[in-house]
Amino acid sequence: MSEEKLPKRSENFSEWYNQVILRAEMADYSPVRGCMVVRPYGWALWENIQKSLDARFKATGHVNAAFPLFIPMSFLEKEKEHVEGFSPELAVVTHGGGQQLEEPLVVRPTSETIIGHMYAKWIKSYRDLPVLINQWANVVRWEMRTRLFLRTLEFYWQEGHTAHATHAEAEEETLKILDLYTDFAINDAAIPVLPGQKTDKEKFAGALRSYTIEAMMGDTRALQSGTSHNLGQNFAKAFDIRYLDQTNQLQHCWTTSWGVSTRLIGAIIMTHGDDQGLLLPPKLAPIQVVIVPIYRNDEQRALVMPYVEQVRQQLSAFRVQVDDRQELTPGFKYNDWELRGVPLRLEIGSKDVEKHSVMAARRDIPGKEGKTILPMDNIATGVGDLLQTIQDALLERARVFRDANIHQPNDYLALQEVVQNGWAFSWWCGSRECEDKIQEETKATIRCVPLEQPGGEGQCVCCGKPASKKAYFARAY
Amino acid sequence: MSEEKLPKRSENFSEWYNQVILRAEMADYSPVRGCMVVRPYGWALWENIQKSLDARFKATGHVNAAFPLFIPMSFLEKEKEHVEGFSPELAVVTHGGGQQLEEPLVVRPTSETIIGHMYAKWIKSYRDLPVLINQWANVVRWEMRTRLFLRTLEFYWQEGHTAHATHAEAEEETLKILDLYTDFAINDAAIPVLPGQKTDKEKFAGALRSYTIEAMMGDTRALQSGTSHNLGQNFAKAFDIRYLDQTNQLQHCWTTSWGVSTRLIGAIIMTHGDDQGLLLPPKLAPIQVVIVPIYRNDEQRALVMPYVEQVRQQLSAFRVQVDDRQELTPGFKYNDWELRGVPLRLEIGSKDVEKHSVMAARRDIPGKEGKTILPMDNIATGVGDLLQTIQDALLERARVFRDANIHQPNDYLALQEVVQNGWAFSWWCGSRECEDKIQEETKATIRCVPLEQPGGEGQCVCCGKPASKKAYFARAY
Repeated sequence: MSEEKLPKRSENFSEWYNQVILRAEMADYSPVRGCMVVRPYGWALWENIQKSLDARFKATGHVNAAFPLFIPMSFLEKEKEHVEGFSPELAVVTHGGGQQLEEPLVVRPTSETIIGHMYAKWIKSYRDLPVLINQWANVVRWEMRTRLFLRTLEFYWQEGHTAHATHAEAEEETLKILDLYTDFAINDAAIPVLPGQKTDKEKFAGALRSYTIEAMMGDTRALQSGTSHNLGQNFAKAFDIRYLDQTNQLQHCWTTSWGVSTRLIGAIIMTHGDDQGLLLPPKLAPIQVVIVPIYRNDEQRALVMPYVEQVRQQLSAFRVQVDDRQELTPGFKYNDWELRGVPLRLEIGSKDVEKHSVMAARRDIPGKEGKTILPMDNIATGVGDLLQTIQDALLERARVFRDANIHQPNDYLALQEVVQNGWAFSWWCGSRECEDKIQEETKATIRCVPLEQPGGEGQCVCCGKPASKKAYFARAY
Repeated sequence: MSEEKLPKRSENFSEWYNQVILRAEMADYSPVRGCMVVRPYGWALWENIQKSLDARFKATGHVNAAFPLFIPMSFLEKEKEHVEGFSPELAVVTHGGGQQLEEPLVVRPTSETIIGHMYAKWIKSYRDLPVLINQWANVVRWEMRTRLFLRTLEFYWQEGHTAHATHAEAEEETLKILDLYTDFAINDAAIPVLPGQKTDKEKFAGALRSYTIEAMMGDTRALQSGTSHNLGQNFAKAFDIRYLDQTNQLQHCWTTSWGVSTRLIGAIIMTHGDDQGLLLPPKLAPIQVVIVPIYRNDEQRALVMPYVEQVRQQLSAFRVQVDDRQELTPGFKYNDWELRGVPLRLEIGSKDVEKHSVMAARRDIPGKEGKTILPMDNIATGVGDLLQTIQDALLERARVFRDANIHQPNDYLALQEVVQNGWAFSWWCGSRECEDKIQEETKATIRCVPLEQPGGEGQCVCCGKPASKKAYFARAY
């Protein structure tokens, strides 16, 4: 941990974000421009995200597989919108084993094409459907402006790819995954995301319809945090994914794809972090509880440490770390673990040993207010309850912040002002013209059109024409 | 599952290997030459291997991270032996985002160089040591002759990279990992590997010393199944990885690296498989128990299926699949699951319901010999015991086969004959000349020099000069 003070989140959000990642040792810059090294603490968070999502995928019948990193350039060209969307961002392998390749290979920016090719080979009959495969993988998109976790040349994600017999089943899958992502974001990451549909302008290159979960960051900017696409028959037609139906007729499949990435780590940092540093939701935190022993001399140490060990053993159901670095003061350690966002700290000195208790300090409430004495009896229950309280409090705080920063302007002037420092939830006529105009003039994009609408009709916030749907407008990462 | 008969393992091992992988849906060929698609059944096996190894890594103090896929070409050139070893096998990215890159990027063939660069940045003091990091990653080596799981352009592995203050600590780590791999191979994969040291000729490009676990496949050829390298200070000097010691002196670190890959899947297939197909060790099998309900009509089905469900619930501690595909006969299903190597099959018909038992069929013992009646009471214990019996039997069978095919020739003529269809364990003088000669004339290489030696002295099997060590010679994959 560096001795220099962390920039204030309220004063320089962007620099605060970079510094907190570097100092908490979540990630570091790679020598290759725009790539990142995810350090052990950051990767442990990702592993917890993976475990949590993977269990949900498997519970809904999905299986994992691994498709190749390299895709023939010609594959991308088979789906017109897809190649237009991705060709400016490709990394291309032109040489292998010292020879120039006959056909350049693209490092996958996403895997619809190569997976489509394999599905065409594997799927023969309606009995083979649905195919519900996910992969955890690295992908590469040659971005010009990069940002740790939010936008890097290489990033880590999961991409689900499914094939179905009917449009209805594909749509059901797409929405099931949207729900799954929403559930994960709210209940595990404590991020009160807003799910909804992307506009045609913002949808995935090659999709029929894209759905998204949108999160509000601590500076009120929006972050697209996960997407689920109904690809219609676009890829099935481009790659000839067909099946024989019950009447022995050849039919094209209906496919979907969906993904979340290490960007979620950025979302967690920017939703919950504060001037002290990270603040990780207990359900995902690599270290849920840090125990800091307090002693002034060897005698006290001999009293405290066996007790600390007892506490540690009682807490075996949690992810616990004992910080017994002898060269550092307790105060330094408090700051260090606050920077790293450990949700609960237990302070244990000789008085606590006497009183047969521990002092618990919540990361989300600074100072004395956040301190509670936990009796040693039933300490696991006490800690479990406190962690759940913190988890709930983080979500609630983020929800209050989000709702306080979503405004409902009815006219264009108000919208222009609102989106400088918040979101607008306003009527939209559905036209590309209004969408483009708003983006050009305010930098705000339509984040999503929620599936649950207030009902009724209104006037488009931009052109004033009749509108039947409301949309979220915001500046986004 | 294809209707065509699987080639016989005894008649055409190589074709049997390919066919069993394709038909059991472990993997498939990618449209890009030499790459593979790992299908869900193969990936589930890899996930179990990962879980088992990852728990061992974490129990020994290692943490996971993720380093970038792309490495600047200049990094590889910093360690002379390393670049000589790897440069013929590189895949090179020359274009990104539509532009030619100033410096070509290598797709990592292994990550010592980029990790060395980062360690140089992170490690300052003896207090920072040891650094014990692992990553699960994909790597690319541009191989000319490829084989599913054994040698593919892209493969999946873990690579551990550690940094230490002293040579002794680095050596201790290297050997600790060799033991860990050995333990995993024997106890989880049921492969009786032989650990030992690689010769200078066979060691990792850039290492001081390489250790290996060597396995004998079902055709008696050797397969290098995992390696652990003491890199000395070679990479620390090339990348300037230094620390201030307790006396405030700058010292170069001592580093190690070690890895196992999806090649282990090939090892499992070629060690345990038979003419019926795969045979997976229970500890790693994606499906440990398959339940095949047997009924002739709806009435029987109505009797059998609730009982099957009861059995399934009793077996919740195991990885169980119920095969209730109604369009297929039980006999077809038996063959299908035998092909896929599920270690234990439970057959449940209306008689079993009456008798309050199930018929268990071991995959490793064909026909009636392998069948046991398990009472429904305590069925979980019965199944657990049987799975352990199968696990032990697989290891024992492989050990017997291995020992029967290791010979101890004392002269060169005998060695030449022995290695055509087995391994030689013979005295070796330690010279590169003899090692080269044997390889040229017999295609056998020195697989390893075991750490535990019989003691005493002998005469080199090739040149007859005095020799103090025995080595394993074999033709290898």
